[in-house]
Amino acid sequence: MNEVLEALHRRKSVRVFTEEEISKEDREAILHASLQAPSAGCQLLYTILDITDQSKKEKLADLCDHQPFIAKAKLVLIYCADCRKWLSFYKEAGLAPRTPGPGDLLLAAEDALIAAQNAVTAAESLGIGSCYIGDVMENAEEMKELLKLPAYVYPACMLVFGHPVSQQKERKKPERFALSDIVCENAYQEKTSEEIRSMFAKKTGSQSYEEWMEAFWKRKYESDFSNEMNRSMEVYLKDFQKGADLL
Amino acid sequence: MNEVLEALHRRKSVRVFTEEEISKEDREAILHASLQAPSAGCQLLYTILDITDQSKKEKLADLCDHQPFIAKAKLVLIYCADCRKWLSFYKEAGLAPRTPGPGDLLLAAEDALIAAQNAVTAAESLGIGSCYIGDVMENAEEMKELLKLPAYVYPACMLVFGHPVSQQKERKKPERFALSDIVCENAYQEKTSEEIRSMFAKKTGSQSYEEWMEAFWKRKYESDFSNEMNRSMEVYLKDFQKGADLL
Repeated sequence: MNEVLEALHRRKSVRVFTEEEISKEDREAILHASLQAPSAGCQLLYTILDITDQSKKEKLADLCDHQPFIAKAKLVLIYCADCRKWLSFYKEAGLAPRTPGPGDLLLAAEDALIAAQNAVTAAESLGIGSCYIGDVMENAEEMKELLKLPAYVYPACMLVFGHPVSQQKERKKPERFALSDIVCENAYQEKTSEEIRSMFAKKTGSQSYEEWMEAFWKRKYESDFSNEMNRSMEVYLKDFQKGADLL
Repeated sequence: MNEVLEALHRRKSVRVFTEEEISKEDREAILHASLQAPSAGCQLLYTILDITDQSKKEKLADLCDHQPFIAKAKLVLIYCADCRKWLSFYKEAGLAPRTPGPGDLLLAAEDALIAAQNAVTAAESLGIGSCYIGDVMENAEEMKELLKLPAYVYPACMLVFGHPVSQQKERKKPERFALSDIVCENAYQEKTSEEIRSMFAKKTGSQSYEEWMEAFWKRKYESDFSNEMNRSMEVYLKDFQKGADLL
């Protein structure tokens, strides 16, 4: 396995950081790696918010499902899907662009995540741990106010970075599903009952499939944060559907 | 710069491939790199369709804004955001999960793109070129039929791979914006007229800002493919908004 593949395999989420700061050079290497990522028409349809204000980090930790480790991160980057900035560029040229639609939103979200994952990989190569915070999609109203987000801009993901403590370095990376569980040839195929149970055989341990799945379901899918994320995304999506010009 | 950072900087889109096949080992290395990517709750909220059927590749080339090079790719992977499979897992355990919402859709799209970008980086490290095809979000009705996509599953991106011809290797990578054009500290900030024009000074060459921007606007934003992408995403989004159980 080459060094790049090794880095991709080695990388796991880090949620406990040492006090060591992230150097200016490493911060820039992480950000430049993002900008080098592929992007639709090389438009870089995102804006990165670098949160340096400690009180904002603490507010974010609270708004993102109450996760205090966020406030302890040494670098906090919010990747906003940005369908607004090109509208400004077009208007600056005297053009009258149409209102962005949900396709524009998804394309921008994709640009943002592709860039974010390059940051994660770059950080790993520098010995810096990272963690995605999807919860940044929650609490749209407070988030808009805190980050001064205008219409057509929404926080697609947050990344927090820091040097991992030794316990985090030694923590086992959660095992992935098998390729055959995830890859279908030529068309989507529903899994049989037997295939589903076999996918989870290693995960459930001493629990029955039903016990494990019910606990997971409550923790993840029927959770407050998940309902809030759906409500919040409805709020962001409204701008992209009403056909009103909010710029 | 370490080898990982170098790979991230070096990587550019490749749209012309040699006749050399992608070996089984390389294909698996690319797919395994995807699965090793971070994922919300380690759920891997995506399904990868490996398109091996040549007639399907040709149909995809046509449906994705008529780009014949897609049919010549040696590996064609469609990363579907999949909010359906966990519903099946929950139902298998006798649970009655709620209908997925737009937050679930975005979270799954993000998982899919994070995984896709790992595949791109892995391929680069193996000397294999890649190109994102965002147009796979278009023509929802035909795409659903071609790929047998059920409700709550949509094709977030397609990646095509192959060995680059020498012209593609030598092609200059398009220049990125500066960090200061993309990164804001602590809150979103609108750009001034002067900042906008300075961002594009290197890109416009001999054209005026207005000329360059109008041509780009027509090619990208006011284009048929862009309107189609918006229409098509409305179709996919409907499942996530009507609150009906389509499973």
